[in-house]
Amino acid sequence: MSDWDLIFTDANIATMCSNGEAYGVIKNAALAVHGGRIAWLGPQSEVPNLRAKESQSLDSQWLTPALIDCHTHLVFGGDRAAEFEQRLNGVSYEEIARAGGGIRTTVQATRNATEGLLIDSARVRANSLVGEGVATIEVKSGYGLDLDTELRMLSAARELNNSHNASITTTFLGAHSVPSEYQGRTNEYIDFVISDVLPVVHERNLADAVDAYCESIAFSAEQIGRLFEEATKLGIPVKLHADQLSDGGGAELAASFNALSADHLEYSSSQGVRALADAGSVAVLLPGAFLTLGETQLPPVDLLRECDVPIAIATDCNPGTSPLCSLRLAMNLGTSLFHLTPEECLAGVTRNAAKALGLAHDRGTLEVGKRADICAWNIRHPRELTYWAGLNQLSKLYVGGTHVEIAG
Amino acid sequence: MSDWDLIFTDANIATMCSNGEAYGVIKNAALAVHGGRIAWLGPQSEVPNLRAKESQSLDSQWLTPALIDCHTHLVFGGDRAAEFEQRLNGVSYEEIARAGGGIRTTVQATRNATEGLLIDSARVRANSLVGEGVATIEVKSGYGLDLDTELRMLSAARELNNSHNASITTTFLGAHSVPSEYQGRTNEYIDFVISDVLPVVHERNLADAVDAYCESIAFSAEQIGRLFEEATKLGIPVKLHADQLSDGGGAELAASFNALSADHLEYSSSQGVRALADAGSVAVLLPGAFLTLGETQLPPVDLLRECDVPIAIATDCNPGTSPLCSLRLAMNLGTSLFHLTPEECLAGVTRNAAKALGLAHDRGTLEVGKRADICAWNIRHPRELTYWAGLNQLSKLYVGGTHVEIAG
Repeated sequence: MSDWDLIFTDANIATMCSNGEAYGVIKNAALAVHGGRIAWLGPQSEVPNLRAKESQSLDSQWLTPALIDCHTHLVFGGDRAAEFEQRLNGVSYEEIARAGGGIRTTVQATRNATEGLLIDSARVRANSLVGEGVATIEVKSGYGLDLDTELRMLSAARELNNSHNASITTTFLGAHSVPSEYQGRTNEYIDFVISDVLPVVHERNLADAVDAYCESIAFSAEQIGRLFEEATKLGIPVKLHADQLSDGGGAELAASFNALSADHLEYSSSQGVRALADAGSVAVLLPGAFLTLGETQLPPVDLLRECDVPIAIATDCNPGTSPLCSLRLAMNLGTSLFHLTPEECLAGVTRNAAKALGLAHDRGTLEVGKRADICAWNIRHPRELTYWAGLNQLSKLYVGGTHVEIAG
Repeated sequence: MSDWDLIFTDANIATMCSNGEAYGVIKNAALAVHGGRIAWLGPQSEVPNLRAKESQSLDSQWLTPALIDCHTHLVFGGDRAAEFEQRLNGVSYEEIARAGGGIRTTVQATRNATEGLLIDSARVRANSLVGEGVATIEVKSGYGLDLDTELRMLSAARELNNSHNASITTTFLGAHSVPSEYQGRTNEYIDFVISDVLPVVHERNLADAVDAYCESIAFSAEQIGRLFEEATKLGIPVKLHADQLSDGGGAELAASFNALSADHLEYSSSQGVRALADAGSVAVLLPGAFLTLGETQLPPVDLLRECDVPIAIATDCNPGTSPLCSLRLAMNLGTSLFHLTPEECLAGVTRNAAKALGLAHDRGTLEVGKRADICAWNIRHPRELTYWAGLNQLSKLYVGGTHVEIAG
């Protein structure tokens, strides 16, 4: 009889817990796993005299919580590379939109795609994330904007979860954009989402959260408020795309529904930030979209720090504004574009990203009792995970205590 | 007897030659390799009736020239992650420099490193580049700044070439920075480089080019002119770090020596750009350093286009200002930061990067007679190579006609 399934020895650990050290570091440490959970961790010199089925010496490699990408649109049909190229060749957003481009291209391609095709194309992107240490990926719907396709996107994400090493969480984003068939009838579209789509999503347990896009080009705070009231009645937590291109009171709206997170936040007001702090919501910052869109208005990082709003970082992987399949790159961009510190960036893809998904009790730090989602890295210090761009130093990934083979 | 060693069929080819099509595209094409060179390419329907030892159907995958990273500082000791973190925690460049930080940290770590250690640490970074399709990597010295260490860096790069699938070219950058022992005696240091280091580098055939850093914090145009005269006498082509932080007349200086390339160029004057055009020099743009340093002055892209100066893009991989190990990422940043088009970005890491290394006769395009350095990609269009960030769609890499196993 073994007491533990696995013990890592000769490791350095960045627990990302508050233990008085930056990154929650424990040097010369060991970590034991049992039943898919972390059973023990601490200084090597204090390891209890227990038996483990398997022991791995890590030769001073670093362990961190496995990474969490808490905001993606990973499931979609087609791509928007042609439009990306047009824009760089001088075609304006307006011309592209008039020609039926922009999000409508993706909605059309997604409506035309089978579930199998959606899964296969998303798996390539999921593999890219998992290959650099991501064990939990949030995936949103929102390119269907009709009942069948929204359900198919969420179902594809659930299926990806079943067939993939990573853990996929799903978010219903029916209120992403007004589909062309509802042009000029935004209220009617929201009514449709509330009465015809959300109940089916809920009944089939297809969504772990409900999200919406609060912006003058999408939905008003009032319209989203009606949707969020329904979601809340059904017991589904909410998240919000808030204040990305203008201050639409998104942060305040998110806070008023105790949202898990408010995302983007470039134009949030100080009242909005204080409301998020009071509500305990996470601020999810998305440097990939900021970079791709050439934005200049920075999110209110100093105020978020001052108000102790937890900051997460995500890829926002999507075909239009953030064709980014690397969470490590989002971390690096978090420093160069948003001036976050390396420790904030790592917390942003572990501890705070877990909180943004309502999973803080289960993962995001290395603590006894949490799921054994663990990365081992060939690095000299965890700050290197943010410093390098495009260098994958992952040595091993464990999800729920199981070693994950990285797809080539 | 076979006529060809290998033929790829059912491919789409972005030759990157001028054939009247964007990207020099040939659809539904085939490409044959013999003796490590491209022996034939063209429409599948026109393949001559010849025998090949091996035939590979590519199922509509795309072939491009293998990528070329024409400006890196890949060989160095240590890293500067700690300093990177200090800066983001609010410590100023000046404070770091006063504490002996900055490039001096890397010079010290490189002087302390054995050749074996330099090779091993550089190999990790080279593998990262090769893993995404890079077959030729330029590597500079310049962190030794004394005879032994400059020779050791170049020797490490040569050794890396022998033991690595990729082809490494070397550049002597003794005039990178004034070492502390020559503080205040810049002219004496240049004299030392000219009389004591360059001749040994030349005698041992350790450098394919000579480079220097023309900037008020480094060397003047006059000082570099003296070095370049010597290099020219020895028949070694020159390159220049020019006008990165201020207009130091770098572009003009490079042009006056018919430099292979002038690199950075953020502050180059219009006369400088016209001089480069007249000299036939390549403009190497380095978005990684621009991003990491938070620069705002853009290189003169429109004028470079207008003057038909070939534009290349490179990682500038280095521990201080561009800890970037992905040329694909440099391409993506070329669009978002410098507003280059996807086709310019791909030309910038193939055709024009070859020219920046004086290798345009040998590689950089897919043409009969050129070295069979070829990438096969799982993409729908070559614009995707710039569109995606952090998604590695490489299917296969061939260097000199030989298939390269990608290191995990």
